[in-house]
Order: sequence, then structure tokens, then C-alpha cells
Amino acid sequence: MPYKAISGIGEFGLIDKISALAEPTLHAVPELLTGIGDDCAVFQPSAELLQVSTTDMLADQVHFDLLTTPLKHLGSKAISVNVSDICAMNALPRYALISIAVPASFSVAMVEELYLGMSHAAKEYGLAIAGGDTSSSRSGLVISVAMIGEVSREQITHRSGAAPGELLCLTGSLGGAAAGLKLLMREKEIMLNHIENNESYTRNVMADLEEHSEAIQQHLLPLARIDIVRFFHARNIRPSSMIDISDGLSSDLQHICNRSNIGALIHEGRIPIHSSARRIADELQDDALSWALTGGEDYQLLFSIPKEAYPAIADHKGITVIGETTDMEEGVQLSDIYGMKIDLSSIRGFDHFCS
Amino acid sequence: MPYKAISGIGEFGLIDKISALAEPTLHAVPELLTGIGDDCAVFQPSAELLQVSTTDMLADQVHFDLLTTPLKHLGSKAISVNVSDICAMNALPRYALISIAVPASFSVAMVEELYLGMSHAAKEYGLAIAGGDTSSSRSGLVISVAMIGEVSREQITHRSGAAPGELLCLTGSLGGAAAGLKLLMREKEIMLNHIENNESYTRNVMADLEEHSEAIQQHLLPLARIDIVRFFHARNIRPSSMIDISDGLSSDLQHICNRSNIGALIHEGRIPIHSSARRIADELQDDALSWALTGGEDYQLLFSIPKEAYPAIADHKGITVIGETTDMEEGVQLSDIYGMKIDLSSIRGFDHFCS
Repeated sequence: MPYKAISGIGEFGLIDKISALAEPTLHAVPELLTGIGDDCAVFQPSAELLQVSTTDMLADQVHFDLLTTPLKHLGSKAISVNVSDICAMNALPRYALISIAVPASFSVAMVEELYLGMSHAAKEYGLAIAGGDTSSSRSGLVISVAMIGEVSREQITHRSGAAPGELLCLTGSLGGAAAGLKLLMREKEIMLNHIENNESYTRNVMADLEEHSEAIQQHLLPLARIDIVRFFHARNIRPSSMIDISDGLSSDLQHICNRSNIGALIHEGRIPIHSSARRIADELQDDALSWALTGGEDYQLLFSIPKEAYPAIADHKGITVIGETTDMEEGVQLSDIYGMKIDLSSIRGFDHFCS
Repeated sequence: MPYKAISGIGEFGLIDKISALAEPTLHAVPELLTGIGDDCAVFQPSAELLQVSTTDMLADQVHFDLLTTPLKHLGSKAISVNVSDICAMNALPRYALISIAVPASFSVAMVEELYLGMSHAAKEYGLAIAGGDTSSSRSGLVISVAMIGEVSREQITHRSGAAPGELLCLTGSLGGAAAGLKLLMREKEIMLNHIENNESYTRNVMADLEEHSEAIQQHLLPLARIDIVRFFHARNIRPSSMIDISDGLSSDLQHICNRSNIGALIHEGRIPIHSSARRIADELQDDALSWALTGGEDYQLLFSIPKEAYPAIADHKGITVIGETTDMEEGVQLSDIYGMKIDLSSIRGFDHFCS
């Protein structure tokens, strides 16, 4: 059997293979309504209620760098990224299980900082930290959070429910997380250069970064849009489809289109770019739009609604209509500010196994 | 603030600190009936049913060694250790979420082997692989499984329900997993010595190990005792307390005693030792009893029942009465074959942060 590297099929190719292996296990559990392929799995524990569940793993040097990430923020982020997946199903989080593998070099206070951040975030979102597992690690810190949420049958929202001719809406703005990460990586490089050259690191980082604190916060302390889910529930709004922006707008929009068998046309001029991201892109001579499209980790919600449902969301200042859904044949396209159409399937988000 | 190493407080000290930080999050979720401190968390999604949940993380070089562990077996074990925690609540598993962090050196076929093992085990236990997360790893393979099970209010079993004067019962036999691990570690050392000395590794390992295959299987492919839970349900038996043997009989018995505020007296002569473990202990000049007490990973069930319930289990050949519960003041004791009483609190199981 020839050696086939994972980079050859990429993260989504690997997920397809895993889904195929998981598929035969589903038959034994008819209450499991949705398996791999959406933001959450969906299970029906009783007639009235649906349970959604998700898990996310954060590994040192892959998802975070402890040189630029305070442990309390990391703990909070580990909770938020899972809440974001729950929100993408139009559900509310109830409880989490947290596993950590801790390097021997960690002190008790470091682990406490991490859990302080988790506990703080859990309280903000109204979910319980119900259990977990602790072990040592021979390499870096690894955090794995599994989270359970609930939603009624009437309100659950999948990636797969969009139809052609609907509005595509986005909460908040994009690009901030990628901008914050770029800045922190630049600072880290400067710091490491100083250390390498035996120079003292005299640069006053805090003062220098203060004007960009919003973007850095967006990267280190993203917030899941549980407020939007509460807004939907209060107004009895059920989007026809929804996903959270974790891989980048381009990838995540394509997930909705693939699962709904539709196309989409979004407009560059309508994509809300984080103002701090624009400033930082200027400073770094980079492109804020491409951060919005492929940077990921903004944890905003992208959803579709029928046009007639628009009045129900029209007065929400934090929701922007960025385009519309189309027939599948029209593909997934971005219309740029000159009206040129760009095929988004050529623009990829982050892939763990391809660089 | 002085540096305090985790080894100074140990794994259980760390869990206490984490529990204290998680505690304030519990108030928001009254349906969460049990948080950290039992084999599973307990959540009540509806009036009739209880949901139990657990998570276990397996990390390369901490929980397994790929030199001696086939990936398919590892996948199966990752499922079984979680099912075992579900069984310890007298519950049956329903679905699992699986996160993996995969080193770049892994091939697609290696990941498939891992999931083949998981899928096979999931089918055996009748649970669905419902979702998960895949990412790359800069260090070794990390697997994190979260699992959800169900049980009625009438059948749920906690660690905390034992009373003095009850019978302590154990399923199966102990020490096999530790014996299998010792053997594999010896083989690994021999192999590495050969490599270091540039000798070819001609030893016919398979032939040599064949007579010990039961113990090796017990280590590589432990089975959760879901058959015992089904037996309990069929006979309407609810143990007063239960735990699975993951840390070793000594530690796990103490967990029951601590949570139930009781003492215990077990008898050396009654502890069922795996026959293969006895043979291997002789060969390695080691002590099979100490493997049973502190080796862990046997994934048998230790439970207590009132004496009057004994007839209901008496005809099950795979259950042994190993002692009785006592008043807390009498401590947790082992009576050896000469009738000498040994304080089990001095005999510790595996601690991830103390060596």
C-alpha cells in the first residue's frame, strides 16, 4: 500500500474519510438525527427537545502560542469557540466537558489561570462546566472541550436549509481576528530577534499595540454570538441555514452552499470589515478583504433568511445583508467593487493539513 | 507568587482546584444534577430520563506508545475507556464526539486504521460516532473522546450511595492490563537495545508472546463491561454504588469510600487475579497482587450491594464478592492471606503528575 500523506487530501478530505467510517455506527441510534457534517451533531433525547453537541481541540503551536496568549484568555476562547458552534444551530449551550493534557513544566497557578478563564466565560454564557479529564503531556498543552446545547424542534437551524433567492446575512464584522494574530506574530518575531541578538527587549509593546487592542482582543478573546441566538428566539426567527465563521467567510459560505445544494452571490462592498483590521492591513501592507474571506476565527454568524422575513431583522444594527443565495449552477461568487465576479471556490480557508 | 509545581499537589489535588473553579458555573444549570467528582456528569434533559457524560483524553507517550500499540486497537480502546465510565453509572452509551490532533508524519491510512478501531468498538457497544474535530499536531497524536449515555432515574448509580454493612463486588479479574503492559515494555526495550547495538531484531516476538496474548489483549483491547449493565437492567438490580477500575482497585475503592463516607475491608484471598498476570508476574519476578491493586486500566466494575440483594447476582459466575463496606472510622483496609490488615490509603494508584 503506497504511503499517502494527509496533506494530499487535506482536512476536508480527511473528514470525508472519517465520516464514511463513522456512518455505519449511526444505524444503532435512531435518536441521532444529524451526525458529522454540520456545526453540531443533533440528538433527540425526548419528544419536545433537541440536543446539539460539538467538540473542539486546541493544541499548543497549532491553535495558540503561549508567548502571545495569556492562559486566562486561552481558557475563555476554548469555551467561546464551542459556544459559537452551538449558536450556529440556533441553540443555547447547557454544559461542557473539558479535557486537558498539561506539560510537566506548568505550575498549579497556570492551570488555575486557564480554568479561571473557562469559568468566567462559562458564567457569561450561562453554561455549566460539568466534568472532564486531566492528564500530563509529554509535549505541549492540549485542551479539548465538548459542549452540549439545547434547542426546540421548531428553532433548530442546519447548514442545509437554504434555498435559492434568499438573503445572506452576516453578524458583526470580519477580519479582526486575523489582523490581531498578524500583529501578535510580528511582535513575537521582534521579541525573538532581540533575544537572538542578546539585546534587551526594550520596545514598549503595550503602548505600541494599544491603538490596535480591538483586533488583538478579537483574536485572543473572541465572543460567540449568543446574543444573536437570543434575539432570534425572542422574535421567533428561524434562519433557513446558519454557520459560524471559523474558517473564513469564503469557506464557510461554501459549506452552506454545499449542504443546501445552492449557489451564492455576495458583494465585496457589503462585507463588513473590522475597522481595526483595515488600519492594521494598511500598516502591514496586507489586504483586509482577504483576511475577511480566509482569515477565520471571527466567530460571527452567517445565515440565510427568506426575503419576506427581512423586516424582522431589519432594525438590528449588527446584522448586514451581504448577498443572496442562487441556483447551484451559478456557483459561489463574490462580486467585487468593480462588478467583476470572482469564483470563491478558488479561495480557500485554513486547512490543518495543507500549507 | 512562588512557583508551585503540579507534582506537589498531584492529579487529585489538581482536580480539587479545578472543581472549585467549575463550581460557580453550576448554579446557572439546575438540570445538571452531578458535576465533577463521579465517573460521569449527570444531566436531566427531560422528566423521565437522565443523561450521563464523560470524556477521556489519550496522549502519545503518556497513555500509549505507538511502537507497541496498533492504531486499530488504540481507536477501540479510546472508545472502551469512555464506555467504561458510562457503565460505572449503570448507564448505556448513546453517542460519542471524537477529537484528534494528528502529527504531519501520519498517513491517511494510519488515521483510517484508528477510526476503523473506533467504528468497530462503537458498533459493538451500540453507540454512534456523532461528530468531532480534526487538527494537526506539532507533537504526538492526541485523541479526546466525549461520550453521552442514558439511564433512568431508577437505575442511575453513583459512587456515593454505599452504606456500611454492604457487600463489595468485583466483575472479572484484575492485573491483566498491567501484566500486558509490562511485557510490551520489556519487548520494546529489547528491540531498542538491538537497534542501538546495530543488531538485527531477530527475536520471534509473536511466538514468544503468544502464551501471554490474553494479558496483552487486556492491555491493548480492554472491553467495557456493558454486559454487566445489561445484566443489572434485565434483573432490575441497582448497585448502591459503582466505579470502574481505571486507576487500580486500591484507588478506586477509596473513591467509593470517600464519596460514600464509609470504610471498607477487602480480602486478598478473594481478589480475582488474572491467571495470565500471575504467570507473567512469576516470569518477571514481580507481584501480581500489586498490579491488581495499583496497575489500573482493567476496566472491571467495582460495586456495592446490600446483603439482601446478593441472591440476585449469586449465579453470575463473573462477579466475585471481595469484601464488605464498614464504618468510615475503620478506614479502607486489605486483609492479607495471613489475616494482617493493611491500610490501603498508603497504596496509591497511578497519578499523572507524581512519579
